[in-house]
Amino acid sequence: MLSDLDIAQQANLKPVEEIANQLGLEEHEWEPYGKDKAKVNLDVMERLKDHKDGRVVLVTSINPTRAGEGKSTVTVGLAQALRARNQDVSVALREPSLGPVMGIKGGATGGGYSQVVPMESINLHFTGDIHAITTANNALSAFIDNHIFQGNTCEIDTRRISWKRVVDLNDRALRDVVVGLGGPKQGVPREDGFNITVASEIMAVLCLATSLADLKERLARMVVAYRADETPVTVKDLGYEGALTLLLKEAFKPNLVQTIEGVPAFIHGGPFANIAHGCNSLIATKMASKLSDYTITEAGFGADLGAEKFLNIKARIGDIHPDAVVIVATLRALKLHGGVAEADLKEENVEAIKRGLVNLEKHMETIEAFGLPFVVALNQFDTDTEKELEYFKNYCEQSDVDYSLTTVWADGGQGGLDLADQVIKTVESNESNFNPLYPLDLTLEKKIETVAKRVYGASGVELTKEAKAQCEAFEKNDWGHLPVCMAKTQYSLSDDPTALGRPRDFTITIRELRPSVGAGFIVVLTGDVLTMPGLPKQPAALKMDVDDDGEALGLF
Amino acid sequence: MLSDLDIAQQANLKPVEEIANQLGLEEHEWEPYGKDKAKVNLDVMERLKDHKDGRVVLVTSINPTRAGEGKSTVTVGLAQALRARNQDVSVALREPSLGPVMGIKGGATGGGYSQVVPMESINLHFTGDIHAITTANNALSAFIDNHIFQGNTCEIDTRRISWKRVVDLNDRALRDVVVGLGGPKQGVPREDGFNITVASEIMAVLCLATSLADLKERLARMVVAYRADETPVTVKDLGYEGALTLLLKEAFKPNLVQTIEGVPAFIHGGPFANIAHGCNSLIATKMASKLSDYTITEAGFGADLGAEKFLNIKARIGDIHPDAVVIVATLRALKLHGGVAEADLKEENVEAIKRGLVNLEKHMETIEAFGLPFVVALNQFDTDTEKELEYFKNYCEQSDVDYSLTTVWADGGQGGLDLADQVIKTVESNESNFNPLYPLDLTLEKKIETVAKRVYGASGVELTKEAKAQCEAFEKNDWGHLPVCMAKTQYSLSDDPTALGRPRDFTITIRELRPSVGAGFIVVLTGDVLTMPGLPKQPAALKMDVDDDGEALGLF
Repeated sequence: MLSDLDIAQQANLKPVEEIANQLGLEEHEWEPYGKDKAKVNLDVMERLKDHKDGRVVLVTSINPTRAGEGKSTVTVGLAQALRARNQDVSVALREPSLGPVMGIKGGATGGGYSQVVPMESINLHFTGDIHAITTANNALSAFIDNHIFQGNTCEIDTRRISWKRVVDLNDRALRDVVVGLGGPKQGVPREDGFNITVASEIMAVLCLATSLADLKERLARMVVAYRADETPVTVKDLGYEGALTLLLKEAFKPNLVQTIEGVPAFIHGGPFANIAHGCNSLIATKMASKLSDYTITEAGFGADLGAEKFLNIKARIGDIHPDAVVIVATLRALKLHGGVAEADLKEENVEAIKRGLVNLEKHMETIEAFGLPFVVALNQFDTDTEKELEYFKNYCEQSDVDYSLTTVWADGGQGGLDLADQVIKTVESNESNFNPLYPLDLTLEKKIETVAKRVYGASGVELTKEAKAQCEAFEKNDWGHLPVCMAKTQYSLSDDPTALGRPRDFTITIRELRPSVGAGFIVVLTGDVLTMPGLPKQPAALKMDVDDDGEALGLF
Repeated sequence: MLSDLDIAQQANLKPVEEIANQLGLEEHEWEPYGKDKAKVNLDVMERLKDHKDGRVVLVTSINPTRAGEGKSTVTVGLAQALRARNQDVSVALREPSLGPVMGIKGGATGGGYSQVVPMESINLHFTGDIHAITTANNALSAFIDNHIFQGNTCEIDTRRISWKRVVDLNDRALRDVVVGLGGPKQGVPREDGFNITVASEIMAVLCLATSLADLKERLARMVVAYRADETPVTVKDLGYEGALTLLLKEAFKPNLVQTIEGVPAFIHGGPFANIAHGCNSLIATKMASKLSDYTITEAGFGADLGAEKFLNIKARIGDIHPDAVVIVATLRALKLHGGVAEADLKEENVEAIKRGLVNLEKHMETIEAFGLPFVVALNQFDTDTEKELEYFKNYCEQSDVDYSLTTVWADGGQGGLDLADQVIKTVESNESNFNPLYPLDLTLEKKIETVAKRVYGASGVELTKEAKAQCEAFEKNDWGHLPVCMAKTQYSLSDDPTALGRPRDFTITIRELRPSVGAGFIVVLTGDVLTMPGLPKQPAALKMDVDDDGEALGLF
């Protein structure tokens, strides 16, 4: 069988100029990065500011297995299918982080005949956006330590520096470090730690800024540390918002590539979906929707995390009104939720699917709670049996659920034609009545409770003493009006990763809050959140190489 | 007065396609990065492999002041002047590191009307090469720590890990750190440190590799640590040379931009000139010389460091035969060498110039020792007086030294026409009889002695006990055949930065040797070498910003 990389390398890419022309971009509105990538200037938003936004379709999923349910693949496949149905369509996706690529995943650009290309470039450095974010993040760390070294006029308490350094790698040895060692000429010793770059607040800021001016304001608002009296110190206090904006101004321009069937693809930004909101950049989604009748976009993990944040955070900030949602499910994941062990997911088990459908049901209710119509897309695998598929179809028909079986990995757009038809029907019947789940003037605690009850199905929330104190302190700092960004396990609707299916009668424990004032949300931690992954015993990198023609080997 | 950034932003850039066409590049041989930058594929080297190399002119200088003597400016100005004299010419320069740009320098792409453009992009991220090197360097660190964490089958002694992490920033707090803290799930605690990226061995490797295959072999040979028995552990032992090559394959392609007067400029690679060899990439110099009749290139710091290494290391590996050398001097630097304090360099002082010329004399002797003809270029400043200039001219004429007064900062190529004429005359009289100063089969100690005596004018060298032991150990490891890469202060011919002019009767103390087996040289430390700069009290970054049109502010 061909690998994703084989398929990508055999693809016949159009020159990016052709993709730009498809979108109606004027020549001065984009710049090439290689022959198959471009950055689109923000001027286009000015030219089209009175232009009506196209339709936006959000792709989400049920609670995923460890392998993921193929949301990106379905997103690309659906767009290709809409194109085959003569629709004017773009996709907007996140850009992959190098850490997981070198660690386990090998690549993260969809799969098979529903992927974005040039696959190897997108997975490796791409147009340098993530490197620019790494640099800006670490420049800020250097500025903070230099500020302290040079006299500390802002009176930063070195035990209360919340800003961490980053690398775009999986590197567990950097989770907890001590910096500034070596004596009085080398700085001031203090505890520090590194996150993976996609967990940097700067990534979230870049992904939620609505303009370059807004980017600078958000960067200025970022809290980096506290004084001994616990008052916050911001980037603006230090005076570096201009330099950070300068370092990020090219990275802020959306990247334009194509799907393997030539659909325009905006690949831009990729914040974590736990301590951040897990969606591609707002500016890319808005740009795509200005330039296309349909924009297909996705959000990380399941609907309880990615979609909730897309709808309560990103859509609200960006004034985005989604027209429909696609909920991706796989029989594998349904079996997992029905109690089957991960090793046995390939075996036929209709009973398990029957039990596991409760997970899908909850996510459907959630999307309805946001006032949005949806289609369930079953992303088919070779191991799915006739009996299982039959059961699934019957279930949907009896429950009056719009659904579609898709084979977009193997068949590209042709494998998603029925899904495209369902989506068109849904969108054209104009059932969207979108509203965020909570108003911003609720207290932080009430916002948390709303998400826990209405999205997770919890009976309530319990805040630790520390979290309660933080709620109070944050309201005092005038951060109470911000939306909440929940950091929760992606495997369960609850905060217990082993509670699969549809857990009931549970409470969510809130352990800690972290302000992302620049990004514009308060992160709410319900358990341990890993912001720096580690490498496995045999990293994917061990198989990577370059052939004699300079082509990549070992990305999957 | 206009700043460098003002001048650069007012420049009327040609589309990079036009520059590529000037060089005779075929369409498939280059890829655009924006409208004014390109990467040139290595295919062109294959097409032109039987093509005779053009002429190579190396620009170096006397021992510099803290501000530098304008080598890059003269390099660009000379190329522009040669173009004005209807010569087919390219420049090959180093790419700037962000650390100094954000710290003190603001920018490093020549100056005035003799600079390379787009100035702001070249100074900020450019085509991402340095970020790729940062990533590859730190991926290797993560692989090393993961190897140890996962069982350490290579038996790395965690107290003997020589590979350090890097950031492309000035960040003194990272010079000495402890990583791997946080308990048994977070790694193995150990001492570590960060260098600035341009001090990474990978930068030197990229700048000395002759092909992609050679790049991989050099990466494989890099020593990262030692076992308890002091035997070296290499990248090949760990198995990551393929992944590192994959991460670097785009960065290895030379970047093509233009000078402000439209001369093709290859800006590629920028290793430190102390613990590395301080020249742009060998592949860029070779490519430029395949594509142009004249290639003007430079080497870091004064002739005692940059030129010595260009000639003994880079030229030898790359089979480059320079045709002439330009030695840049300024009256400011001559006055400094004549005993004037830095604060008083703007005041007329003919006597000091007279005394300071001994420094220039030594560098002229050195270039002659390599068998190379030279022209002295006096890079003029507003503060130079008639009397001073007259004295300098008389000196050159009486000593029978080819020289030229240049005003390329203010006048571009027109300010270097006489220099161009001198260079053409020198090159066409075909006086080059280039030879490295030592054969590779000398012992390390003899090589060091040769450089110290013939380049620095020392009476001898003294090795510390530690350095002596390292010499022996390195010969035992079969590294004795490598050239030496001297790390010495740039301010003096000796190892004492305060010994200006032409010190005599001094010995050079060799404190330590460090193997850069992948790069292919042994670093020889004569004093403290700073591989991670710090930021000043008021970093240049404090003045940086972006205007309403997204244009850079505050780069100088």
